[in-house]
Amino acid sequence: MTVLAGGVGGARLAHGFALALPDGGAPADGGGLTCVVNVGDDTARHGLHVSPDLDTVMYTLAGLNDEERGWGLTGESYATLAQLERLGEDTWFTLGDKDLATHVVRTARLREGVPLSEVTAALAASLGVHARLLPVTDDPVRTRVTTPSGTLAFQEYFVRRQHADAVLGLTFDGIGTAAPAPGVLPAVTDADLLVVAPSNPFLSVEPVLGVPGVRDAVRASRARRVAVSPIVGGRAVKGPAAQILETLGHEVSALGVARLYTGVVDVMVIDEADAALAAPIADLGFEVVVTGTVMGGPDGRERLARELLAGVGHRA
Amino acid sequence: MTVLAGGVGGARLAHGFALALPDGGAPADGGGLTCVVNVGDDTARHGLHVSPDLDTVMYTLAGLNDEERGWGLTGESYATLAQLERLGEDTWFTLGDKDLATHVVRTARLREGVPLSEVTAALAASLGVHARLLPVTDDPVRTRVTTPSGTLAFQEYFVRRQHADAVLGLTFDGIGTAAPAPGVLPAVTDADLLVVAPSNPFLSVEPVLGVPGVRDAVRASRARRVAVSPIVGGRAVKGPAAQILETLGHEVSALGVARLYTGVVDVMVIDEADAALAAPIADLGFEVVVTGTVMGGPDGRERLARELLAGVGHRA
Repeated sequence: MTVLAGGVGGARLAHGFALALPDGGAPADGGGLTCVVNVGDDTARHGLHVSPDLDTVMYTLAGLNDEERGWGLTGESYATLAQLERLGEDTWFTLGDKDLATHVVRTARLREGVPLSEVTAALAASLGVHARLLPVTDDPVRTRVTTPSGTLAFQEYFVRRQHADAVLGLTFDGIGTAAPAPGVLPAVTDADLLVVAPSNPFLSVEPVLGVPGVRDAVRASRARRVAVSPIVGGRAVKGPAAQILETLGHEVSALGVARLYTGVVDVMVIDEADAALAAPIADLGFEVVVTGTVMGGPDGRERLARELLAGVGHRA
Repeated sequence: MTVLAGGVGGARLAHGFALALPDGGAPADGGGLTCVVNVGDDTARHGLHVSPDLDTVMYTLAGLNDEERGWGLTGESYATLAQLERLGEDTWFTLGDKDLATHVVRTARLREGVPLSEVTAALAASLGVHARLLPVTDDPVRTRVTTPSGTLAFQEYFVRRQHADAVLGLTFDGIGTAAPAPGVLPAVTDADLLVVAPSNPFLSVEPVLGVPGVRDAVRASRARRVAVSPIVGGRAVKGPAAQILETLGHEVSALGVARLYTGVVDVMVIDEADAALAAPIADLGFEVVVTGTVMGGPDGRERLARELLAGVGHRA
């Protein structure tokens, strides 16, 4: 099975599948879990290549994620960051000492010419991740956010300005010439179950689907294709999904999300709080599953994952 | 005044001058302290550019050096290094979390095309260093050590194998085409006092003098030229200077060091323990100063620096 994921929401659901599947979702008999992850939020900090979404999924699958914050490693210290500040660096992008090791190694390998997908596989293996973790592309894709204050690099918008600006539009620099990373298209095409995680449809899912070949592979996939709404009760579980739906002129609801995924998935999974939207979403042509979609900790993630797996006859 | 320096010995004497001179040796009326530092021990670790000698001098001048070890920053932690090890990196070269910030910033600036001398000046200023700190060259020079086990990169010899191998020869890759960094030749030529620090003559001083133009500038300098012997009582104060003198066929004494500096300096400063060598060294044509040369902490450094300054009529 394959999950298309951004950061926190994708990481949590992927973690649920890793917990529900044998051997943490390790590849076996063509089975196992593959996570295809957004790289539009990748950024250079202090000359280091940082891949926040990949790392959030990787750390979460490794059981090392700081659950309280949702990102970064648990038990972090910040000695290097404090010294970087002393040396005159802008330190609004928080990097822990342990987290830095990931970026240092990734940057070194990329500069040696190793593709991001290989670097990611090696890092994930070192941290004990059994599932397969794939950046959607090895090529640079960079999300840029158009706001009333101008166009911002993604992390400028997201972290530095704490996604407070109205989003008037999004571009994904480089996406037109990006190629899917090795393994991405087969993981989409050959899956039994393809899950669009409850990640931000615009910031996380679109730059995955938008890599040439990926959306077509999703459309052509023989998988049961499922999306979990990141909007519950008209609000985003985390992050700016609700504001962006609104400023881009969509309904701020699971129905609004469903409209975005028409032709992409067959099944919309919505929260019990949105049960009233099941009928209008079904009218769009979706099969609708109503369940508890707010995952919280590992137990909730595994429960949701098991429900989704049960829906395709998987046994975990 | 100008100090030609390697790591620990050079750093300590430079620190003495910074303590003895007004405003920490800051440039003033053409005065102040300039340190010209070896870069032959520079190395790439985890894709980061590390300049151990420059950093030892910089941290020591900033009052931030770990005095017990002689290198690195005081109050260090090692969270990143532990994580680098977890990620499969070789971690025999110890890098503290705060120290890493230096290497991260240096690497980022170098990759942007900023010369090492400018990067160094900015780092030193950030840490509150008043004296001028110059790498002898902005070009890559890499010391390689020929041993019975083969030719080793310098840090492989020095740190990983703890300078236990017999040194049969030394090469300084790139030195033939290296240019002195901006400011190096004037700092040598125009100084009133030029001090060859009690650093390793082969590993630290030779790759400074060997940069084309530097040895000639020393010879042509109008300065009072002084070298402090790193050998006291037939032993090195720190490091492998004694073993290297021996394996390269030199006398392991201040006299052996003096022979290496014939034509380079006018004055040899030797320790009281070596008073008996004053006559034979004087016979080589040197003026000889006998004093306590083992500096220890800041007080001893400042005392030695004041004695050397007094010898040229400086007032501190």
